Amino acid sequence: MKGNLLYEGKAKQVFEVEGSDDQLVLSYKNDATAFNGKKKASFTGKGKYNNLITAKVFEYLKDKGVNSHFIRALNDTEQLVERTTIIPVEVVVRNIAAGSITRRLGIAEKTVFTPPLVELYYKKDELGDPIINDAHAFLLTDVTEQELQQIKSMALAVNTQLQVFFEDIGLTIADFKLEFGRNKNGEIILSDEISPDTCRLWDVNTGEKMDKDVFREDLGDLLSVYDNILNRLEAVK
Amino acid sequence: MKGNLLYEGKAKQVFEVEGSDDQLVLSYKNDATAFNGKKKASFTGKGKYNNLITAKVFEYLKDKGVNSHFIRALNDTEQLVERTTIIPVEVVVRNIAAGSITRRLGIAEKTVFTPPLVELYYKKDELGDPIINDAHAFLLTDVTEQELQQIKSMALAVNTQLQVFFEDIGLTIADFKLEFGRNKNGEIILSDEISPDTCRLWDVNTGEKMDKDVFREDLGDLLSVYDNILNRLEAVK
Repeated sequence: MKGNLLYEGKAKQVFEVEGSDDQLVLSYKNDATAFNGKKKASFTGKGKYNNLITAKVFEYLKDKGVNSHFIRALNDTEQLVERTTIIPVEVVVRNIAAGSITRRLGIAEKTVFTPPLVELYYKKDELGDPIINDAHAFLLTDVTEQELQQIKSMALAVNTQLQVFFEDIGLTIADFKLEFGRNKNGEIILSDEISPDTCRLWDVNTGEKMDKDVFREDLGDLLSVYDNILNRLEAVK
Repeated sequence: MKGNLLYEGKAKQVFEVEGSDDQLVLSYKNDATAFNGKKKASFTGKGKYNNLITAKVFEYLKDKGVNSHFIRALNDTEQLVERTTIIPVEVVVRNIAAGSITRRLGIAEKTVFTPPLVELYYKKDELGDPIINDAHAFLLTDVTEQELQQIKSMALAVNTQLQVFFEDIGLTIADFKLEFGRNKNGEIILSDEISPDTCRLWDVNTGEKMDKDVFREDLGDLLSVYDNILNRLEAVK
């Protein structure tokens, strides 16, 4: 079923599907990267956690009426998705201040954003994914004004669902990153992954970081944290 | 007439006016700074050029129906202005790509922006004036959505006038920075300065840089360039 390798990113490989123009296979890698690729490591088993956690998230979102490119998990590390062409704009939604924004704008950690803050970043590794405004997005990509409005609305709708989803397993979602693509009909589709690699998740009771910050900040064993999240999800969902 | 020193910035001192609550005296300094203050020098006479050039620009804008805080030049280095409280958002309008945007977003130098690109920066020296989006502006300052729309419209209106103003003296305005304040009635007022310190100005015929880039990039004698601009202005305006 899996065809040619189309693209290899930092966290995933993207394969064609033999005999299908409108599907892809995403294969989750064990690599972890941070600080625009300056910090790198590999964790045997990490691909499985991100694949299975992402599958749980996208299934939940679908149940709640928020569609994505996700079709189904194929095995521990691979999932079948609708083929989209990614719009090179990373959409970050922030509920609580953490990470780069605290240094960039001098905002105190744990400041609550009401309403949630939406930021756009230009997805371009060699530039370090710089923050952009709407006008830059129109200049640098083919996204239209109407599509960008739709993308921001979808990002906020996803946020509303994710807050409940993670609250149910005792986690606060401080912020997360989304990517969107266009399918063959030109429709905007939520794409990429939603996992502890792309979300900041804090234990509701202990405040413990349960996401890629464990790797960024050398806080402990990344795999056992990701395993803990998957276990919590399998217990309730 | 000049009262207490209220504030000293990198390029100007701001004084109260004795017996007046609604006016200020701006005194232009001879200091030049670049790269967020990392490069510094002093040029005897520079304050005079920026004061007199800014006066010419604001007088022209007023003629064209674009009001600012400017009332009148008092002498070579000082001008009387309406008192405003500065909104800590720097508004950059770009007609042609130059400087930081080429490095930040990988846009080729001299790329023409149609329409002109408007960017916001958070005016905060200790953070290096980071670029922000509208949502950050609402979060970090007391500017309202309506005021920010007004500020962007005013910036584009200023751009239209400045393009003609500088074209008349053989200069292309590639980009510039504006600041806005609120007067005692709460009205949004164009403030600060418009000078070769805050604009990128290129000779229409030779392409020569005739602005603070001469200092940033060590291209020659800053004072003779600023003198040249003032002479051109005095010849035609």
